[in-house]
Amino acid sequence: MQPLDLPDSRLDQLFNPRSVAVVGASDDPVRISGRPLAYLKAYGFAGTIYPINPKRQTVQGLKAYPSLLDPPEIPDVAIIAVSAQHVLQAVSDAGKKGVASAIIMSSGFAEAGGDGVALQRELVRLGKQGGVRLIGPNCVGLFSASSRFYGTFTQSLDGGVPPAGGVAVVSQSGAYGGYIAYLARERGLGLNYWITTGNEADVDAAEAIAWLALRDDVQVIAVYLEGVRNGPAFMRALATARAARKPVVVMKVGRSAAGAIAASSHTASLAGTDAVYDAVFREYGAFRARTTEEQLDIAEACLAGKFPVSNRLGIVTLSGGVGVQMCDAAETYGLDVAPMPKPAQEKLRALLPYAAVANPIDTTAQVMNDMSLVAKNLEIVLRDGGYDSLVSFLTTVPAAKAYGTKLRDAILAGVAAAGGDRLAVLCMAAPPDAVKSYRDAGFLVYQDADRAVQVVGALTHFGRSFEVKTGLSVAGTAPRFEPNSGTLSEHVAKAVLGEAGVPFLQERLASDRTAAVAAASEIGFPVAMKIVSAEIQHKSDIGGVVLNIKDTSAAGTAFDTIMDNVRGHMPHADIDGVLVAPMAPQGVETIVGVMRDPVFGPVVMFGLGGVLVEVLKDVTFSIAPFDETEAMAMIRRIKGYTVLEGVRGAGRYDIEALAKVLAAVSRFAALNSDTIESLDLNPLRILSGKGGAIALDAVIVPRF
Amino acid sequence: MQPLDLPDSRLDQLFNPRSVAVVGASDDPVRISGRPLAYLKAYGFAGTIYPINPKRQTVQGLKAYPSLLDPPEIPDVAIIAVSAQHVLQAVSDAGKKGVASAIIMSSGFAEAGGDGVALQRELVRLGKQGGVRLIGPNCVGLFSASSRFYGTFTQSLDGGVPPAGGVAVVSQSGAYGGYIAYLARERGLGLNYWITTGNEADVDAAEAIAWLALRDDVQVIAVYLEGVRNGPAFMRALATARAARKPVVVMKVGRSAAGAIAASSHTASLAGTDAVYDAVFREYGAFRARTTEEQLDIAEACLAGKFPVSNRLGIVTLSGGVGVQMCDAAETYGLDVAPMPKPAQEKLRALLPYAAVANPIDTTAQVMNDMSLVAKNLEIVLRDGGYDSLVSFLTTVPAAKAYGTKLRDAILAGVAAAGGDRLAVLCMAAPPDAVKSYRDAGFLVYQDADRAVQVVGALTHFGRSFEVKTGLSVAGTAPRFEPNSGTLSEHVAKAVLGEAGVPFLQERLASDRTAAVAAASEIGFPVAMKIVSAEIQHKSDIGGVVLNIKDTSAAGTAFDTIMDNVRGHMPHADIDGVLVAPMAPQGVETIVGVMRDPVFGPVVMFGLGGVLVEVLKDVTFSIAPFDETEAMAMIRRIKGYTVLEGVRGAGRYDIEALAKVLAAVSRFAALNSDTIESLDLNPLRILSGKGGAIALDAVIVPRF
Repeated sequence: MQPLDLPDSRLDQLFNPRSVAVVGASDDPVRISGRPLAYLKAYGFAGTIYPINPKRQTVQGLKAYPSLLDPPEIPDVAIIAVSAQHVLQAVSDAGKKGVASAIIMSSGFAEAGGDGVALQRELVRLGKQGGVRLIGPNCVGLFSASSRFYGTFTQSLDGGVPPAGGVAVVSQSGAYGGYIAYLARERGLGLNYWITTGNEADVDAAEAIAWLALRDDVQVIAVYLEGVRNGPAFMRALATARAARKPVVVMKVGRSAAGAIAASSHTASLAGTDAVYDAVFREYGAFRARTTEEQLDIAEACLAGKFPVSNRLGIVTLSGGVGVQMCDAAETYGLDVAPMPKPAQEKLRALLPYAAVANPIDTTAQVMNDMSLVAKNLEIVLRDGGYDSLVSFLTTVPAAKAYGTKLRDAILAGVAAAGGDRLAVLCMAAPPDAVKSYRDAGFLVYQDADRAVQVVGALTHFGRSFEVKTGLSVAGTAPRFEPNSGTLSEHVAKAVLGEAGVPFLQERLASDRTAAVAAASEIGFPVAMKIVSAEIQHKSDIGGVVLNIKDTSAAGTAFDTIMDNVRGHMPHADIDGVLVAPMAPQGVETIVGVMRDPVFGPVVMFGLGGVLVEVLKDVTFSIAPFDETEAMAMIRRIKGYTVLEGVRGAGRYDIEALAKVLAAVSRFAALNSDTIESLDLNPLRILSGKGGAIALDAVIVPRF
Repeated sequence: MQPLDLPDSRLDQLFNPRSVAVVGASDDPVRISGRPLAYLKAYGFAGTIYPINPKRQTVQGLKAYPSLLDPPEIPDVAIIAVSAQHVLQAVSDAGKKGVASAIIMSSGFAEAGGDGVALQRELVRLGKQGGVRLIGPNCVGLFSASSRFYGTFTQSLDGGVPPAGGVAVVSQSGAYGGYIAYLARERGLGLNYWITTGNEADVDAAEAIAWLALRDDVQVIAVYLEGVRNGPAFMRALATARAARKPVVVMKVGRSAAGAIAASSHTASLAGTDAVYDAVFREYGAFRARTTEEQLDIAEACLAGKFPVSNRLGIVTLSGGVGVQMCDAAETYGLDVAPMPKPAQEKLRALLPYAAVANPIDTTAQVMNDMSLVAKNLEIVLRDGGYDSLVSFLTTVPAAKAYGTKLRDAILAGVAAAGGDRLAVLCMAAPPDAVKSYRDAGFLVYQDADRAVQVVGALTHFGRSFEVKTGLSVAGTAPRFEPNSGTLSEHVAKAVLGEAGVPFLQERLASDRTAAVAAASEIGFPVAMKIVSAEIQHKSDIGGVVLNIKDTSAAGTAFDTIMDNVRGHMPHADIDGVLVAPMAPQGVETIVGVMRDPVFGPVVMFGLGGVLVEVLKDVTFSIAPFDETEAMAMIRRIKGYTVLEGVRGAGRYDIEALAKVLAAVSRFAALNSDTIESLDLNPLRILSGKGGAIALDAVIVPRF
């Protein structure tokens, strides 16, 4: 595995400063430039605050200094809230003074286009020169609960701050970040860290994620992304989080066509292809939330710290109908509502003769007549059912005054008797105090049955991804590719890729008629012949291909025909000769491609040939390189997968051989990401049984 | 259009009774049999209550009567809460007394299987005999807010009842119904009617929907379904609701494989195919919610009474990032984030030079500096943008004390200036009182951006479905099909379907060699020949097909070959002769099928031939009969649709001809739903341009 990025210790100071200067601090606590100071004072920052304002003696009651050079000590952080044209001076001063980091709230940089782009470039230069890490510009700042450092002007903290807790928030959007902070406070979700990265002139989301992943007081990271510029750093950050068992819950906008257009007009970031983001999140175990509520629910659920490693879900319900609803949700979220083992079913039937005992376990409301049955039932399901997680639908029973805490205690007893280590999620509607009593007892509680199951799905996603040990690099090597011209002939492409582990037909290049006939005889009839020339792309169109050549006489004629056709169409083409090859065996046609994503580098695409790729876009992507395990997962991901398993009585095709090719191509593409623009095996034919795979054509477009 | 069902006036009495008897009423208000009485008393039922209990003088302080025959007047409704074996007597008494309806809460009927099935059958007989409409058995009752009639034992009303309001709830599940009632109370959502239908021995969800759809005090109907038994009645109920412009928001469980199995084990209902339910909901304009929260949000939103008829959505946002998020959501929910017309964009740019003015309109938070800009901006977007609906993301600004009601008033002014008739949805995070002030001003307000857009999608779904005037029956006729044997030969099937409007190749049946050669000459070479026998299904497998016959001599040989092959394989088959046909022209292969759904009758299936149907199950269903407009919609619904539009340089295929065939088949299937079990055109080949469509094979399986 490649080494992960070492965290910059200046970020430690940034998030937990002993002192902070606020450049451009306003005396008006409502103004943008007044709010950081107001928040720092109101919410209890314990360090020293140095307002920087040449026009005032004091700002909001604190002694002010004319410039960043003037405070009596070196501030750990400078918050810069002056107009764009004054930011450069402030950053230059910060460097001279020795300030470790600057949070630049000012806008008018790259996001504004025009002169702003150059201004931002100069900003970066000054930061590097002075050794100052920059947050923003065009960001709304950051906060950390442990040091009560609220270095932000987000209006969302107007009424208070979220409680401290194990969630960290990284948002490229100030507004989204503020929204999350507000919602977190509203639901009592604890945030220890919160950072908005704005234009990411220096510190980006990736660096923030990687730093946060290594903090003991961070349990889960909620991220909002519009686009990533440094793909490899982002992937290393996700890998760091995964290795530290810190779930990352991402809201990445721009998945739709309209959204992608809006995103590119809104952000200065290069957006990259959304499907490639999906591949990155999948490969590094991040969970992509579709809605903000989902993102917060899942982040909150991660705080329980239980991550099932199998997707077997037990459902216990007081309502048969909602049991069915939860089965539907389980399928949506990739969970397996496997029936209980027979002995467990019998045990349960003895206990609850009126209940459905397979899964969902429908106890009906009758179970409420005897709380010991509730406990015993849950114990059996959890212990003997072999489930890694359980969702129980309790209707509005927990709201009933008659039951009080009896039901909660019975559920606790049941879960404890089964060992207490499984994930148990409850679904109920009840007054807030009743819900709180279940939450305080350690249960995840949801009102919506679908959401309860979705959360289990997300936690299981993390449980499984934490088991993955590989990533970033894989075992195995690949040959180095050094192109010396802009286009490659098929023959050369095949030779290069053959060396990289892609199987081709045993072909011979024959430069004249005699050699062609001899090659055909050696290979054995029937054979095919194709013209070979770096200048000729569409060989069939100009009569450069003859198939199914049956004997030596036909072989000679075929050679002549091809040469006549080619000379007729392209008299000046530089011709290497003809390729003589055996006729390809039958099989399923697949397409394997590599393209360079501008953000994430080489990405391998896989799909079945024909209408599935062309009409239904049934393709999948994985970031190169990857191993054969990921290749197998990739193959199974496409909708047309069952074709490879064999349909209409056809036997199974050689999926293992296909996986080998995919992994080999990914290694080759990753090693040569600087010299390959794109690569195509189209078709890669997969033979039945253990027959292997054969690429029938190959194109490499070099990159210089 | 077929006549809709006339509502039974006994349901008027059921939902608004002047008096009610409670058979088996318990003195203990906590017991199931005590709760209806307790609720009726506690929540202010104004009519007379007659407890029926032979063992007591009074029940919960009210005078009790020994049997249903004893009260001094005829109760409008009897609630029956005695054990199953005593229910029959109670229903019999109800009939004798002249009680119009009985709500039977007791379980132990069809849902219990065994003797319960017969018990339920007897119940139905007694109800019919006595003229008593039955709700349940195995239901938890119903309530109506206007008469404060709480004839239910649902524990969910323990702490109070939902407010009165325009939502009606119909639930086959008592637990789900109770859950909804609880959640409605919690969110202040008004329910005027609420009914759980249990085993549906008599009154079913369809009848309840149809009755509710015609009430002035019902604006929207939320329905929970596990399965429908009377498909046609259910479709008529949905058509009634649509005609009355009453949205129906359905939670139908069992969409997953695991869910369907759980449903069939849970409910006594015949579940039917879930994809067919989807077709029914689509065809009759019901909206299928995926989660309970979604169902309630959408039902609540319908109360605003604004149903956009176009899907053009304007997005106005203070945050560019959330604007992108809402674009993504718009694509998910079928809305079109069309850019503003250029003149409107210029107007807006003059107003807000720093804003993005296409769509999403990103005003940034700067607009907050001048509230008149907020108003003017909304006015321009709504009036000049040509949008039927608007979603505006306001971040947490409405929470800011500094703005107070100024922002709300500015938004109101902007919407009013644009005419005030468009749907305007706001997304914000703010304290409950601030949110309430926006809601009271008539806005739909959501915290989650995705949910805000989804609600617009659902309201637009209804707006469009209310425009649909057809349904239930269509213009045009079809021939009557009267089968006289169990299997039909291809030749007969083609003749029947040809008469119904399905185009076939001009084929001739030839019973001997001479006739076959003559037929081939008349049709013109090349031709194909196929054996014709009702006993032979797989013609090719036994050598019963010869293709591409080029001349008369080959025609004779082909005839002999086929006869030899057939006699060799099936010496005793009854042979009609050979079918001589022209070789079919090239085109796209489609599959058209009809199957009888056990609940909804004949359903037409359509898909593209080959891997799209076989592997990806890329098919769609519509309930027969339907017209060519629905057929066109059906064709566009499949994922492979673009194949018909022409891919890889191929021209467009004759989609109109395909639509004609689909509509004709649907009419034929609907008219002959009693005599056709299934029907297949496989393949139906669609020719390019205006070439038409040709069915190459036809199978009809008759039904007796």
